[in-house]
Formats: sequence, C-alpha cells, structure tokens
Amino acid sequence: MADINSKLEIGVTTGPIRGSKKIHVGPLGVAMREIHLEPGSGEPPVRVYDTSGPYTDPNATIDIASGLAPLRRDWQLARGDVEEYAPREVKPEDNGQLGPDRSGGVPPFPTALRRPLRAKAGMNLSQMHYARRGIITPEMEYVAERENLGRARLTEYKRDGESFGASIPDYVTPEFVRDEVARGRAIIPSNVNHPECEPMAIGRNFLVKINANIGNSAVASDLASEVDKMVWSIRWGADTVMDLSTGRNIHDTREWIIRNSPVPIGTVPIYQALEKVGGVAEDLTWEIFADTLIEQAEQGVDYFTIHAGVRLPYVPLAAKRMTGIVSRGGSIMAKWCLAHHKESFLYERFDEITEIMKAYDVAYSLGDGLRPGSIYDANDEAQFAELYTLGELTKRAWAQDVQVMIEGPGHVPMHKIKENMEKQLEACGEAPFYTLGPLTTDIAPGYDHITSGIGAAQIGWYGTAMLCYVTPKEHLGLPDRDDVKVGVVTYKLAAHAADLAKGHPAAQVRDDALSKARFEFRWRDQFNLSLDPDTAEQYHDQTLPAEGAKSAHFCSMCGPKFCSMKISQEVRDFAAKQNQPVQTFIASEEEAEAGMKAMSQKYEEGGRELYIGAGNREHD
Amino acid sequence: MADINSKLEIGVTTGPIRGSKKIHVGPLGVAMREIHLEPGSGEPPVRVYDTSGPYTDPNATIDIASGLAPLRRDWQLARGDVEEYAPREVKPEDNGQLGPDRSGGVPPFPTALRRPLRAKAGMNLSQMHYARRGIITPEMEYVAERENLGRARLTEYKRDGESFGASIPDYVTPEFVRDEVARGRAIIPSNVNHPECEPMAIGRNFLVKINANIGNSAVASDLASEVDKMVWSIRWGADTVMDLSTGRNIHDTREWIIRNSPVPIGTVPIYQALEKVGGVAEDLTWEIFADTLIEQAEQGVDYFTIHAGVRLPYVPLAAKRMTGIVSRGGSIMAKWCLAHHKESFLYERFDEITEIMKAYDVAYSLGDGLRPGSIYDANDEAQFAELYTLGELTKRAWAQDVQVMIEGPGHVPMHKIKENMEKQLEACGEAPFYTLGPLTTDIAPGYDHITSGIGAAQIGWYGTAMLCYVTPKEHLGLPDRDDVKVGVVTYKLAAHAADLAKGHPAAQVRDDALSKARFEFRWRDQFNLSLDPDTAEQYHDQTLPAEGAKSAHFCSMCGPKFCSMKISQEVRDFAAKQNQPVQTFIASEEEAEAGMKAMSQKYEEGGRELYIGAGNREHD
Repeated sequence: MADINSKLEIGVTTGPIRGSKKIHVGPLGVAMREIHLEPGSGEPPVRVYDTSGPYTDPNATIDIASGLAPLRRDWQLARGDVEEYAPREVKPEDNGQLGPDRSGGVPPFPTALRRPLRAKAGMNLSQMHYARRGIITPEMEYVAERENLGRARLTEYKRDGESFGASIPDYVTPEFVRDEVARGRAIIPSNVNHPECEPMAIGRNFLVKINANIGNSAVASDLASEVDKMVWSIRWGADTVMDLSTGRNIHDTREWIIRNSPVPIGTVPIYQALEKVGGVAEDLTWEIFADTLIEQAEQGVDYFTIHAGVRLPYVPLAAKRMTGIVSRGGSIMAKWCLAHHKESFLYERFDEITEIMKAYDVAYSLGDGLRPGSIYDANDEAQFAELYTLGELTKRAWAQDVQVMIEGPGHVPMHKIKENMEKQLEACGEAPFYTLGPLTTDIAPGYDHITSGIGAAQIGWYGTAMLCYVTPKEHLGLPDRDDVKVGVVTYKLAAHAADLAKGHPAAQVRDDALSKARFEFRWRDQFNLSLDPDTAEQYHDQTLPAEGAKSAHFCSMCGPKFCSMKISQEVRDFAAKQNQPVQTFIASEEEAEAGMKAMSQKYEEGGRELYIGAGNREHD
Repeated sequence: MADINSKLEIGVTTGPIRGSKKIHVGPLGVAMREIHLEPGSGEPPVRVYDTSGPYTDPNATIDIASGLAPLRRDWQLARGDVEEYAPREVKPEDNGQLGPDRSGGVPPFPTALRRPLRAKAGMNLSQMHYARRGIITPEMEYVAERENLGRARLTEYKRDGESFGASIPDYVTPEFVRDEVARGRAIIPSNVNHPECEPMAIGRNFLVKINANIGNSAVASDLASEVDKMVWSIRWGADTVMDLSTGRNIHDTREWIIRNSPVPIGTVPIYQALEKVGGVAEDLTWEIFADTLIEQAEQGVDYFTIHAGVRLPYVPLAAKRMTGIVSRGGSIMAKWCLAHHKESFLYERFDEITEIMKAYDVAYSLGDGLRPGSIYDANDEAQFAELYTLGELTKRAWAQDVQVMIEGPGHVPMHKIKENMEKQLEACGEAPFYTLGPLTTDIAPGYDHITSGIGAAQIGWYGTAMLCYVTPKEHLGLPDRDDVKVGVVTYKLAAHAADLAKGHPAAQVRDDALSKARFEFRWRDQFNLSLDPDTAEQYHDQTLPAEGAKSAHFCSMCGPKFCSMKISQEVRDFAAKQNQPVQTFIASEEEAEAGMKAMSQKYEEGGRELYIGAGNREHD
C-alpha cells in the first residue's frame, strides 16, 4: 500500500491498520485507533494507543515534501514566550562534505528555510518549567487523554499486579501529568521546532513506551528508505524514533524525518560533531559540539543523547572488561578524554548544554556510554560509576527545569536486571529509565530481538519507562524494513507484558477482548485485535485459506474432531443450567457425588448433546 | 542438505552443524558437539550440549527405514530383569481406520514386528527404582558426563546467580544423578523399548531442557514431514519431542518417529484412545485406554501425558473462565466425567496405570488439563485445584518408584509466574516442572514464541526443569519446518538465559567465548558459537557479503569510521602500558588529575596512535 511520492520517490506506507479506524477524541482531537468487532458479538469496540499519526488516517493527505501539519504551533505561540529568528546557516560540513566521499547528496527539504522558534531572552520553554509553575499545558492535556485508553470500562476490572513502588493512577488527569512532569518522574519530549509531534509521556506511571532506531551509515541505507522506516516503525507502534545516521547527509536526512514525524525524534549529536571533524575524535571541540546542538535544536530534535557521564577517571575501568566500551558515543568521549588528558567537555560544560536545551525544550537522554556489552561485563564498576554521575547530572538539569531521562543497559543476565532498576531509581531520583533490552544472553545473534525482549519485559515491569528496541540484525547488520517491524512488534508485546504485570488498569482490556474472540471462534476479531493483524491472518491462512474457515468453529491445529473450546462452552452451559454453587477442590466425597448426579441428569435431559468439535491446540 | 531416502522418500537433514564437529566422550562415548575457533585466536574449542544424534555425525550411516542403532540394548539386557515377548497385535483402529476417512494409509515401519521387552513378573524397570536401590545405571553415568559440559574450565568462573533454592553442583557425578532420580527431583525418560534414545535428565538441578511438539492432524501434515520435523527439531536443540498426532495413521507414524529418534518421545495416549472410539468421548473406557498404553509402551514412548488431575468436582470451576478448558486431553476427560456423572477413570485407576508404567519405565508427565488459556484465567481455582491433585498423584506414583514430571501453564502474566513455580514445588515435592511457555500476554498471535519465551525464561529461572516450546503459529495453525526451527531456537535461548540466571557453572562459557570473538572481530567464530550459525551469517552477509568482511575489523552497523570495540582495545592497551591501579568512581580530583597526566603522556609517546575504526552498534 505504498504511495509513491512522484516528486521525490519517497514512498511510505499509508492507509488504516487492518480492522481498525482512526478516531479523534476530546477537544484536542487526540488520535486513537478503534478496533470494531463482529456486530453479532455484541462486544464494544476496543480503543488502542495509536502512534501511527496521519499516515493511517484515510482523511489525511500525505505529502512527504510538505511534511505534516504543525499540530502544536498555536499552543506554542499562545504562551507568548517564544520568538522567531533567522536560523543558523546550513554549512557544507553539516552534511559531512568534509570527508573524502562527496557523493550521495540528498535534496534539502523544500521548506527547510522556515524561521525556527526559541525562548525569548530569559525564558524557559521546557514542559517541566511550566509544570513547576503550576501550568497545565495543552501537551499535558493531550497526554492525559491519550493515556486513558480503555479506562472508561475500568469498573469491570479489579486492579491486579506488582508495580514495585510505581504510582499508577486509576485515571490520568491533566493535573496528574503536570505533577509527574514537575517531579521529573515523566517527560514530554516536545522541541518547540517540532510542532508536528503528537504529545506523549515517558514515565514509570504511564504506559511503557518503546523506541525504534533508524538511520543510515556510510556503508548502507539512503534517505528514502530512512523516511519509509520511520513511518513504518510508528505504524506498528514505535512511540519515539531515534535517527542514528552517520556518514553523509546527516542534516538533510534528519530534516526530512522530523518534518514527517508525528512522534518525538531523538539523536546522538556527537555523531554529527565527529563527522564535522573528519572522524578524528581528539579534534572535537566544545564549540563544534555546541554549534551542532543549536543546529539540531533548530530542526526540532526532541531529545539528545548526551554521554556526559563518561568521565576520564572511569575510562580505565573499561580496560578490565570482556568487551570494553560498546557505546559509540561513549567510546568517542573516552578517546577524547585520553587524548587530551582532560575531563570530558560534556561533563564540564553540562550547565551550558542545559541552557541550550531549555531554550528549545530539548530533553536530555543521558547516555550510558559505559553500559556492558556482554554478560561478563554486566553490573560492573564502570557501569555503576557512570550511573551515579548521571544521577548527579540529572539534578543539575532539574535545577534549570530541563527534562531528563536516563539510558540503561545493554547485556545483563536476568538475575542482575533488578539491581539496575533499583540503582537507577535511587541514583537518578525516579527520572525515567530508558533501556536497551537488556539482552539476557550473548549466544543468539540473529535472535537478539528475543534475547533482549525477555530482559525488556522484565525491566519494564520493574519500572523502566521506555524500552529501546533491538532487531534481529543486532550485532550483524543494519535493520531493513522487515527487521524494523519485527523489532517494533516484539517490543510492543514486551511493553504490554510489563503493563499487565505492573497492574496498569487499562492494559488487560485488549487481552480479554482477544481471548474472548478466540474462545468464540471470531477469527477476524482475533486477527484485528492482535499487534500484527496481517501476520496473524497470513499464518492462519497457510493451513486453512478458505474464507469459510474464518467463521469455522474449528481450526487446523486439531482438525474438525478435537475441540477444547467447544466442550468448554458445553461445560459452561451445564453449570449455568444446573446453577449450583461451584465446588472447590476441597469438595467432600458427598458434595462431589451430588455434583456428579446433578450434572449427569442435566446431561441426559440435554439429549447427550455433547460432541467434540475442534479448536485450540496447546501442546495437549 | 537433505538426504532423500529413495525407498520411502522420507528426507531428513544430515551433516554437521556449521563450524562444529561431533565428538564422543568417555567410556560410554557420550555424544557432544565441539566448536573449533580460529587457530590464530589461541582460544580452546567450546563444547556444547548436543541433542542432534547421529544425524550430525559424518561417520554415521542414516537409513530411516532401518532406524537408529539400539545404544542402550546391552545395558538393558545386562540388568537381567527384562523379558522379550510377543507384542500386542496391531489392530486397524490403532491407525484410526474406524472413522469415515480410510485414505492416507502410511507404510508400516519395516522392522516393526520385532519383539518388545517388558519387566519380568514382579520386576520394575524404572530408573527411579534402580536409583532407590542404590544402583548407578549406565543411563545415569551417561547423563553425568553429558551435563558436565564446559565444567573442566570451571576454575576460571566464580559461581554467580540466584537459583531460588535449587542445588546445582559444581560438578555432576553419577552418584549425584542417582540421588536426584531417587528423590524424584529428576527423571531420565527411558522406555525399555526405545533403546535408540541417548539418556538425558530433566530436573531443576540440571541444565534447563526444552521440548518440541510435532504431529499431524486430520487436516494437515503427513508421515514424511513429521519424521523430518523430528530430526530438524533435535538438530537445533530439542531435548525431547512430543508426537501429538491425531487423525489417521497414529500408530505407524509414531513407529517411524520413535525408531529414528535419539531423544525421548512423549505422547498423549488419550488422543489415540479417542480416535479408537470414533471421537465420541463418552464412549471411552478404561479397557480401551489401558490397551492404548500397552500399545504405545511396546513401541517405546518414553513419557505419557496423563490428565488424571481433571477430577469431576473441578469441572464446574472451568465454567467461570474466560476461555474454559484449553487442553484437549483435559476437555476430553471433562466431557467424559460430565457424561457419566463419574469420577475420571484416569484418577480412579491411577495405580493400575502406574503398574503399566513401571513394566516399561514410561515416565508420567501429569497433564495440567485445567491450565489457563488466557491472562484472565491465570492462577485460578480450577488450575490450582488440579495442581494439588497432581501432587497427590505424584506421591502415589513414587510409592511404586515410577518417574514423574508435572505439566504447567499456559497463559500467565509475569507477576503471577512465580506463584506457579512455588506452588508446584510445594504440592509436588520438587518433581520436575514442565511448562508450556507461559505466554505473558494474549495480544500477539503470530509472535507467541516470543510472548511465551519471556515467560519461559522466567519460570525456567525460578526452577522449571523443561520448557515446552511454542511456535509463531500457536493459536493459528500447524507449525511448518521453519516455525519448528524458530520455536526451538527461541526456547534454547530462553533455557540458556535461565541457566545463566540460576548460576549454572557451565552456562557462561559459551557467552564469554562468543563475546570475546565479537570483541576481536572473529566473525566466523561469532557465527559458529551462536545457536543458529546459518542465520547469523546470512544476516551479516545481507549488508556485507564480501568474503573479506568476515575478517574485517568493522561492520555495516557503523561503517569504517565509527568503532567502539576498536577504541576499547586502545583503552585497554593504555591501561596495560601505564599499568597503574584502576581508579574507582570515587576518585578524588588529585587522583583524577594524576591519571589524566599519566595517560596523556603515554598517548603522546604512542605517537597519537588512536583512530576510530568501526564496530559494534548498540543504539548509540
């Protein structure tokens, strides 16, 4: 279903996700997705969180060359604390034209010359700043509406779960969002220059979010496929997208991505800064780095990964490791520190960086440059040394009301995952944790979306606010379109498993709706309620392609003679007819005997109306 | 690499797994796989547990029509407690020739007319019986050798992990195996009529095992593909295989599978019994069921799933559920109980079943017929009512020295998984737990190998001895060859993650070897050490196909200019050269300053010999 944009041949996937329709809720028209079930079922439609933006709205016109509508612009201007100004001029080196390779230039985004916004002198645009002054912004209202999915039906559900100290409310009010942002327990990434972004929150008391990484490298990938990957990843549920491009055309590629993204975009500015100095880390300077921050802030990047915790004294700690430093940003800074026998300029100039962040409301994603890259290195001295420094920097950022989240590992065996979460909460004052996996074993390259999905579900349960996806290509190559989808769906299910275990009041609605559909052989509803309806139906059709099978009360697993689901319905009918109190497993012989007689009688009366149909196979 | 067996066109995959060679260790010639690393690396070969049997041994001749060599036959005869006898005659209904469909007959296994073995009058062939009399059998010796993988290098490893009360020894002795089997904490499934089976142990103090389900249904699949799936599943690591065939040809299909299987085979006898009565559950009788047990015991089935815990008084409890009874065996017995207003004949005749089990050493896999089929039904009254009955039956089986394991759920959210393990340990006296998943959410059909892999890794960590795989087709269709491989590899990595977290002394050897290879850019070693070398190399080659890239010190993720691994080596060299004590993160300013100066000096001396190469990309 790819619309090819004739002008630039940038094609993206549009159209509704199978079985659901886009709705806009409340005065702010918060975008959600509604899955309508079979009319005969008498089941209400199920509302699900929707990250896909206008691309799944049949009423929206998509023109990649124009970008998305500036949803938040009026809100920003109404606050009266911003000013338009002439942007920093785009330099050749912004697109990596310093290096030997001058090929592969991409066209600049047509309307890229617009005037950016920034805070008026002395002003602070961060959502945290508004929150701390008691102001409830439209962004906070949008988030509240968005997070309340399914809670209208809450009365039907008893709270059930273990949240390890989280404070998930029954219902999310704008005031609750404001308070969480004010405390620093949640962030709403929202660069003033990314008005196309639909507000979302990252925090342990909200739905667990996931991030998808895209970006070209000097070896592979190009502009069109990166824009397509961004749209593709949000279609399947990516809450934020990081553009990790290196090599050429970094500036222009990013512009195309941001202008077309309804979700927050994150970057690692040190990558581009390094390109600007020809890849020689020791030639990096504060001036070049600061200029790169301004450049990206003007484009609208919503959060920056800053590896300010890689301090010179920690670098030697990495020498004891099996796999040293696996973070690119971390290794770049480690090298700079060694080369200059100086403390990291990111650490020393941290408050100056914060000044830039608050002028645009760019959120910090404090990078864990010393995270472990193998099971052997998990939870070591280098990792925790950096974590405590990130805690110190969090407080420095908060002192200027700038939003912060903390990046986490990495490779960690299951028994060491909880310690990561506990130390992070303690060291960083409940600032949102944003982890990569963690991978729970090193021995399955090609399946690291799963080795890490296991760790991601667990750390999400313990309190991590956002999970950075890992694709099957991790450690092996750059993810293609299919890898991106598998990575996103894997992380969506891990995040959902975490929400269920935390006892999020809205989470189980969808599981229950799908299980009920499964029990009642509503195959289409089962497909449509799943995270990936296309794949579910395709798998079903591989054995029973006939259209009739979609309504058949059996499936290929057991064939038309075995059916556990069918008989369960009969058991239920029995119990209903006899309506005798259900017996417990400590039933006495007498009670049992009575139950047997009663049931058998009903059975005889029912004309032995039992037979084994066919249904759900689960290993026996 | 499929050898087509011309006579019967049953093709199976043979030949070594890439990068490794079959070895036979010790006086019993215990089969293992050895992965040889690059000569230049100076790394020793890595021994891994091998379930693939003779199919991966270039020196073995494979003839599907003859079956495998009877490895254990001499051990059995030497014990002097067995007798050969004329087998029960194969009846038409054994192959389901009662029903309307008389098509699709498969050829009987050529040598199927051999005379089976059973215990002489009054004798008991179970490994538990030998163990309790203090006898260490060759089977126990085989298991001990097999479980000690990598422990020769143990001295290099400190024990590290949380085993939740397991008693994993540093080194496995035959006496330890005997003791575990005698206590009922481990089983060695080993039907006297399956001498082709390579002994293996299932117990929480041994490596976590996985099971793969195969089997045709009346709707799909055939003999050749089932035999192929069995061989394919053990190639990738299935420790046992369950033949869940229904429909026609059950007897002959099973014979072909058992005669060619080097791993224990499990079945659910009630499936075949039901076929014998034309699919009408209420027509099932004890006589037909008992006859089916004999039939399958003579063929060599190593463990039977028996749903004797589905008692009549519990059936109404399922009426309160979202998805009722999802176990086919459970629903069949529930229906029988209701129809006859009688207690289950499996429960009432349990001790008679046990008499049959011990005459052939068939192990019980007590089925959880009332396991939850949805998040909503997890940990409910019906489930735990049955569990406590399974505990009672365990003790009755143990009273006759018959081996037992307990089947477990199903669909369980993460916060309710641990309770399952704890209740099972308490109710069943540490009899091995054998769980299906559990699936941690219901909303991802098409990805249930992952929703369940998350739960499997956790419950394996808590103490489950064997994990029953779930494939991507779960709930949607019958798994094909590719689904079987994905399911097996997913469960192998989940089981390994559990071994790591439990602190199994041998587990981390492989992770460390692979991570070291990754750090040193030994791409081939990285592929060969992985659970699926073919897929790992294929993914790598999708972006960098050139042969040279296999030795390149960079990869496609970051391109030739970024490299965290490379710089880490440089950091290590620095630390080594300066050999100053590594500083901790509470380093004082003075210490830090000193470190900086020292390092910078080395750097200048080294001729600024640092540059950023390319390496491992992990999200930043």
